Amino acid sequence: MAHHDFTPTVFYTTIGPHEPVLTVDAGDTVSTSTADARGRDRDDRQVAPRGNPMTGPFFVRGAEPGDTLAVTLERIVPNRDYGITSPRIAPGVLDPGTPIADDEVSECRWLVDAAAGTARMVEPETALCRVPIALAPMIGCFGVAPAGGQSISTATSGPHGGNMDYRGFAAGVTVYLPVSEPGGLFFLGDGHAAQGDGEIVGTGIEISMDVTFRVDVVRGGSIRWPRAQNDAWLMTVGNARPLDQCVQHATTEMLRWLETEYALPPIVSHSLLGQCVEYDLGNVFDPAYTMVCRVRKDLVTRVRAAL
Amino acid sequence: MAHHDFTPTVFYTTIGPHEPVLTVDAGDTVSTSTADARGRDRDDRQVAPRGNPMTGPFFVRGAEPGDTLAVTLERIVPNRDYGITSPRIAPGVLDPGTPIADDEVSECRWLVDAAAGTARMVEPETALCRVPIALAPMIGCFGVAPAGGQSISTATSGPHGGNMDYRGFAAGVTVYLPVSEPGGLFFLGDGHAAQGDGEIVGTGIEISMDVTFRVDVVRGGSIRWPRAQNDAWLMTVGNARPLDQCVQHATTEMLRWLETEYALPPIVSHSLLGQCVEYDLGNVFDPAYTMVCRVRKDLVTRVRAAL
Amino acid sequence: MAHHDFTPTVFYTTIGPHEPVLTVDAGDTVSTSTADARGRDRDDRQVAPRGNPMTGPFFVRGAEPGDTLAVTLERIVPNRDYGITSPRIAPGVLDPGTPIADDEVSECRWLVDAAAGTARMVEPETALCRVPIALAPMIGCFGVAPAGGQSISTATSGPHGGNMDYRGFAAGVTVYLPVSEPGGLFFLGDGHAAQGDGEIVGTGIEISMDVTFRVDVVRGGSIRWPRAQNDAWLMTVGNARPLDQCVQHATTEMLRWLETEYALPPIVSHSLLGQCVEYDLGNVFDPAYTMVCRVRKDLVTRVRAAL
Amino acid sequence: MAHHDFTPTVFYTTIGPHEPVLTVDAGDTVSTSTADARGRDRDDRQVAPRGNPMTGPFFVRGAEPGDTLAVTLERIVPNRDYGITSPRIAPGVLDPGTPIADDEVSECRWLVDAAAGTARMVEPETALCRVPIALAPMIGCFGVAPAGGQSISTATSGPHGGNMDYRGFAAGVTVYLPVSEPGGLFFLGDGHAAQGDGEIVGTGIEISMDVTFRVDVVRGGSIRWPRAQNDAWLMTVGNARPLDQCVQHATTEMLRWLETEYALPPIVSHSLLGQCVEYDLGNVFDPAYTMVCRVRKDLVTRVRAAL
Repeated sequence: MAHHDFTPTVFYTTIGPHEPVLTVDAGDTVSTSTADARGRDRDDRQVAPRGNPMTGPFFVRGAEPGDTLAVTLERIVPNRDYGITSPRIAPGVLDPGTPIADDEVSECRWLVDAAAGTARMVEPETALCRVPIALAPMIGCFGVAPAGGQSISTATSGPHGGNMDYRGFAAGVTVYLPVSEPGGLFFLGDGHAAQGDGEIVGTGIEISMDVTFRVDVVRGGSIRWPRAQNDAWLMTVGNARPLDQCVQHATTEMLRWLETEYALPPIVSHSLLGQCVEYDLGNVFDPAYTMVCRVRKDLVTRVRAAL
Repeated sequence: MAHHDFTPTVFYTTIGPHEPVLTVDAGDTVSTSTADARGRDRDDRQVAPRGNPMTGPFFVRGAEPGDTLAVTLERIVPNRDYGITSPRIAPGVLDPGTPIADDEVSECRWLVDAAAGTARMVEPETALCRVPIALAPMIGCFGVAPAGGQSISTATSGPHGGNMDYRGFAAGVTVYLPVSEPGGLFFLGDGHAAQGDGEIVGTGIEISMDVTFRVDVVRGGSIRWPRAQNDAWLMTVGNARPLDQCVQHATTEMLRWLETEYALPPIVSHSLLGQCVEYDLGNVFDPAYTMVCRVRKDLVTRVRAAL
Repeated sequence: MAHHDFTPTVFYTTIGPHEPVLTVDAGDTVSTSTADARGRDRDDRQVAPRGNPMTGPFFVRGAEPGDTLAVTLERIVPNRDYGITSPRIAPGVLDPGTPIADDEVSECRWLVDAAAGTARMVEPETALCRVPIALAPMIGCFGVAPAGGQSISTATSGPHGGNMDYRGFAAGVTVYLPVSEPGGLFFLGDGHAAQGDGEIVGTGIEISMDVTFRVDVVRGGSIRWPRAQNDAWLMTVGNARPLDQCVQHATTEMLRWLETEYALPPIVSHSLLGQCVEYDLGNVFDPAYTMVCRVRKDLVTRVRAAL
Repeated sequence: MAHHDFTPTVFYTTIGPHEPVLTVDAGDTVSTSTADARGRDRDDRQVAPRGNPMTGPFFVRGAEPGDTLAVTLERIVPNRDYGITSPRIAPGVLDPGTPIADDEVSECRWLVDAAAGTARMVEPETALCRVPIALAPMIGCFGVAPAGGQSISTATSGPHGGNMDYRGFAAGVTVYLPVSEPGGLFFLGDGHAAQGDGEIVGTGIEISMDVTFRVDVVRGGSIRWPRAQNDAWLMTVGNARPLDQCVQHATTEMLRWLETEYALPPIVSHSLLGQCVEYDLGNVFDPAYTMVCRVRKDLVTRVRAAL
């Protein structure tokens, strides 16, 4: 149950079977930092390439292919006072042929006030500069080395995680990822001080972060898509296109969870989800889109107890 | 500002330019009832055909093509004590090839306790029978006569509304629909005592309802997709397949709303949505799927004031 | 086996249970004409509304719901010497954000030379004006009254047929449509002198046509999507979005055909399609897209004989 | 202009920046062989892992990132007398909920007679065993190392090529691929003796092949998706989901080709494609689907000459 303080010096823009930067044990916690999506750190230095550079990979002793890596995001805190956003909704998120706003602004700058818990646009000068919004720090991209020896760009996502850009991946969440390589090889980066659903402008408020996480290994598990939970919710993730397919992956994974680990019979799992499921939109910008299927944990627990 | 009590005797399973059942004025309220999706009423009588039979159409004096009909859902209350659900998640919502649960149950029965505010499965006997869930009454299908003289099945949806099966269409919401025929011709039905996102089993808890709504006419308007608001949210709706296209319609309609009625310049509307938008899943079961784009009304109001 | 010469005076832009313009018997042939997609006839007169106005409906005695209407397109010949095209590929067919060609041309005019069998652009003046292309006359939109009493815009398509814009719907083809209303109620229009796959500019070479067709009734049949055949091919049609869903509808309908009418066991029907099926793209422009699944008739016949 | 005979001993199931197996010059030809999709060679030995093992990569001297690799498939000939197919259409290609044929057959065996130019099912015993089909040898999977240092599974495809399973990739075709790594790093494998459009059963007639190809380097080029040509056609390829997006990629790439290399003004390129384009379906089975956009080369050449 050691604690590691790790300062990254190497950054990858693919998630794959790369040389580990640190080896840890199951139960350990790691405090580290992430560069922003453009590769700039807490001091605004260009320490990494653009394109969601990752901190990691972290090798977790004992994690073997077929196991499940559990990563608890304990702390996600912006470590500088500004973030960057893109000023335009992506054409793919609007009706084909919608005129593209002809504006010369190429990026917006936001002042991030961690103490006040707010972010406020400061450049360019617009009405938004007078309406701060709430901070809601999250990690846009994380995952483990994918199956089959692949190395996959941090622009996209898949069963291994990756660039999911889901607002729900915030402090207090434990995420579960399918281990395909020895040690799992966990990567993380692409922090957002806040973000709307869908990451429809192609960015959250992009910022470097201090992150503390804890790793555990679940023997076996055979999950096929990322899962997650916090105090309130069980969540499953589908990454694909179109969104319909994300819904299929996430819902099928949730059924597997409810039927396997909670032993709910099909009529119960189907009826429970039918009347109580909720879906969240992760990204609708990246090469693969993301939908999250979730159900209240207390409801599942009470149904389980009533079997 | 008259009030009308209307008891339906005719029910349609298409939304189109049908003979009005009642003519009302802008500002009037109507109290009426809806049969359930299978055509059964408060007394469990088969009063209408199966397939989302509609109460209406209501002709609103003064509503002309190009106008917008505003309908405030003031009260939606189950008028009997049981509802029906389907026991299986639709194959289209799961990964292709997922085995279909081989269960002989063809429907489930739920006891609806309006006083307690709960619904509880009572048949078949399962663990769910011991875990009541919260009532959250909503209207699954409503709309106005579509453009071009079409009559469209209440199984599906479009720019005119229709079978959207969105949990957010509950009491307290004002919905806006594009008028294509004189009088607008408003229809409603398909009440659910509760429903998960997506209506993934193909039903909510299907039940007959007492409904009170108020109609108003907005001159012009030129909305292209349904809009809605309640105390907290502005909402726009996209109905199509795949879900990606729903997102496009709903987001484009929200931009039009923010830029036209709230006069937000593009950099503000795009940046505001980029960091603050939320999306809800309506149905992912019917021929056309539904996504809802929403943004907090107080946020829009404050930004508007800061222009 | 009568022959009818019919001159249309009424045109519909929805396909639905409208008043028949002519009643015919199974086995009869009809020679008639169609206005172009903009409602202009052989003499360039505006005889009908824009938006794929239909000639018909034709009531076929004895066709009852559950039957199948067989329509053989015997002759499709442009009846004037010019056609119109749109000059730009639709934004939805190109990558989101592709700049829209900033050209003031709103339509192109083509000279149609039926004797020479060619079409040649004549306005505006471009290199294409010196390269005639081959005529390949086809009917873009036809169908029967849809299920459930619906009236559906001729902009779109469905199980009833409609605006499929498939190049293969040319003379020599027999199409099969599911009868939902007494008499079937057959409509046709939207002729193209030629068209690329997908109708990606939103038009073929739009032209008025002389058409001769023959109607027959197949008792029962229970087809769910349009089918067709000519000397060489069996074809099935799926109309939906996205194209993936069109493929699903068309392939499933082809399996039903092979397994029901040709009595092929599943391992034969699946293996035959697996190694020999072809797919054509109908439209990728209209609200519902179209894919056609086809297999060589002689191959199916030989396999049938070898059972 | 050397000729190389190369016998593979190493096989990869990802396409990425792997150690080259042979270095060649632009203009060289290579004769080599490919194992089948399951890793079996001409002698039915298991020489490679399952899952589309690739022969290669071949390093082409002088090919630099930003260049285009041109590979002419000169000869593709089955080098043994049997091939294997899967007996069932994939669930994702059929309507959701279509019952899966309950057959114990897990694979079918075909006799491939290169001299006669036919393939004939031989196991299990069915009517298809008496109806030989025509051989049409093709390469299902080939490509170059992808952008960004990625290694991507040979189960799928992308801008770099990969598992496209397009019947048109046969002898006589020159394919163009975007170079991302020095030397390009060309891989090939997954031969099919014949295949229906879409590879809807998940296989063609899977067989090992003798292949001869020639490599050339086009300086610059800046293609974004694979292109190809043979005597008759110009072709562009889109790999994605849903098929709609494949159409977008392929059509946009074809426009770039026509407007850049053939200098067609937009009104000509759009109008030409509008009335003359054709689309083919590659695979509709793999993680990314494939559509091919094509236009007759002689038509483009004549239009070019008429500018």
